[in-house]
Amino acid sequence: MKLASLKGPSRDGTLVVVNRALTRAVKAGAVAPTMQHALEHWDAVAPKLRDVAATLEGGNERHAFDFQAALGEGRVDAPLPRAYEWLDGSAYLSHVERVRRARNDKVPESFYKDPLMYQGGAGSMMGARDPIRVLAEEWGVDLEGEVAAIVGDVAMGATPRQAADAIRLVTLVNDVSFRRLIPAELAKGFGFVNGKGANALAPVAVTPDELGEKWAEGRLHLRLVCEVNGKRLGNPDAGTDAQFGLDELIAHAAKTRELAAGTLVGTGTISNHDKSVGYACLMEARLVEQVELGEAKTPFLHFGDRVKIEMLGASGESIFGAIDQRVEKYSPPALGAGE
Amino acid sequence: MKLASLKGPSRDGTLVVVNRALTRAVKAGAVAPTMQHALEHWDAVAPKLRDVAATLEGGNERHAFDFQAALGEGRVDAPLPRAYEWLDGSAYLSHVERVRRARNDKVPESFYKDPLMYQGGAGSMMGARDPIRVLAEEWGVDLEGEVAAIVGDVAMGATPRQAADAIRLVTLVNDVSFRRLIPAELAKGFGFVNGKGANALAPVAVTPDELGEKWAEGRLHLRLVCEVNGKRLGNPDAGTDAQFGLDELIAHAAKTRELAAGTLVGTGTISNHDKSVGYACLMEARLVEQVELGEAKTPFLHFGDRVKIEMLGASGESIFGAIDQRVEKYSPPALGAGE
Repeated sequence: MKLASLKGPSRDGTLVVVNRALTRAVKAGAVAPTMQHALEHWDAVAPKLRDVAATLEGGNERHAFDFQAALGEGRVDAPLPRAYEWLDGSAYLSHVERVRRARNDKVPESFYKDPLMYQGGAGSMMGARDPIRVLAEEWGVDLEGEVAAIVGDVAMGATPRQAADAIRLVTLVNDVSFRRLIPAELAKGFGFVNGKGANALAPVAVTPDELGEKWAEGRLHLRLVCEVNGKRLGNPDAGTDAQFGLDELIAHAAKTRELAAGTLVGTGTISNHDKSVGYACLMEARLVEQVELGEAKTPFLHFGDRVKIEMLGASGESIFGAIDQRVEKYSPPALGAGE
Repeated sequence: MKLASLKGPSRDGTLVVVNRALTRAVKAGAVAPTMQHALEHWDAVAPKLRDVAATLEGGNERHAFDFQAALGEGRVDAPLPRAYEWLDGSAYLSHVERVRRARNDKVPESFYKDPLMYQGGAGSMMGARDPIRVLAEEWGVDLEGEVAAIVGDVAMGATPRQAADAIRLVTLVNDVSFRRLIPAELAKGFGFVNGKGANALAPVAVTPDELGEKWAEGRLHLRLVCEVNGKRLGNPDAGTDAQFGLDELIAHAAKTRELAAGTLVGTGTISNHDKSVGYACLMEARLVEQVELGEAKTPFLHFGDRVKIEMLGASGESIFGAIDQRVEKYSPPALGAGE
């Protein structure tokens, strides 16, 4: 089953069921008005949503609309338009290794057993076609292509097995990062506040069964295709070199607290040790250039630049739809123009 | 105006208006079903809520109920039962100074200009009388008494003046911390995930005008009274030694992103340079003992211990009501017993 949200009428959006090909969709309506509602009442709601999905797949859904058209018209929000918690791991140690090697540092031994994770903001997620709005290019605007799980309620102290059972949906994330702000902020020791922007999610989130055998041990064994201005940046395999699965990352997040339904847990930037596959963020390309060429040549994102993040199935079909965003200069909303 | 939330029927609770003396309350009903709804539609909703408050204050509200009874019966939730973002500053540098002195370190000069801040979880806030549930006393369970602002929508790059205008409500927070987990977690460099638990808010949140002249420059010039097992831990003045006001902390949080209505921004643990006033967390008492006596004598919280955090007005009245919690052993909810 594939789910998405249309923008409005409330900030939680309107839940829609989407067919496998991502061409047709239908509002979930009375079954569950919003994704957050569905996640909070999953056991009761999911079977009904599956019925809608089956009807839609069979072409018998009278009220279906053209999902691609809605996407093109900017009417599609993030599948979960806002999340109460966004906990982002750093499961791919080749990413961490490259960052640290550039400053002549190593990956601590503990990172192989104890996941690195930060808590970020997700109070207003970007839809997959929404612009990345920033005040200044000088922040060093970068993409980070990731896989994320949206969970149901998770008990404090849950095991990875219990965490895996709580994974309701899987999707892709663009965890926008401001590279030039990060060193000074991390030096303060309390993690990221200014160094990370709003995140975008892929157009749809899918139940794990949609991923078949590609979903195993909390890992998605498919390549993440990342492009900048239509040029391939990389297509690392999300199933390779993942030190931790999403099950383990969720269990780590839940060690000392309950996670509420709708919590979003990310893998961190997908990265492979084999650098011939390229990268899912500009920073890694720059760090490798710095080590190999003496200087970073790949620029960070400028206004007008376009970023695309997508994952393709065995037949080349887009599983989650593409995150496809342009970088824009932010201007504050006019006073009183808010909702 | 003073606002609170009753528990249920949804996870967002039910918004109620409370009188100044915190004795009577009435459901906001059709005006705004939940606090989150009120915050998202503040300009339209606040005048109506003020009308309800005036009627209640005049004793003419037919459907009013006993707020203290509801509190005693555990029916009162946090005023904002869940928040999309919880951004906690560290405005009181005597707190930072004591933590660092204990490890022979100083407060970096930059901390006087650039606020220390972390992002925490707020997907399920504790009500003021809810137990603090932890799996292990060995985590080093501690309270942190703070003041927090609940804001409306804040534009990216907002000035402190604009941030001040976005403060809708002020309340108290118990930012529960697990001291023995923090050193190893902070050493990883990405901030807190396991080191902090769920937060509790005071029974009510109040509009800044309720605070009169005690609210100035984003600071609340009143003492925060903290007790453990009925014994005074400290009553530091929240208006003294605050390096940053909540206006500046909100502006810091909004430097590179919009903050959505319902975002919660905290001052960090209230602390004064004058140690004769005591402390708003056990850790500081321990650190001072360590420096002065060679060892920490004040224990962290054990199961059964009781924590009280309150702020009193000029006539000794409780402005926000007391956070009053016991520490309990956590047991996971039975399978299928969730909502």
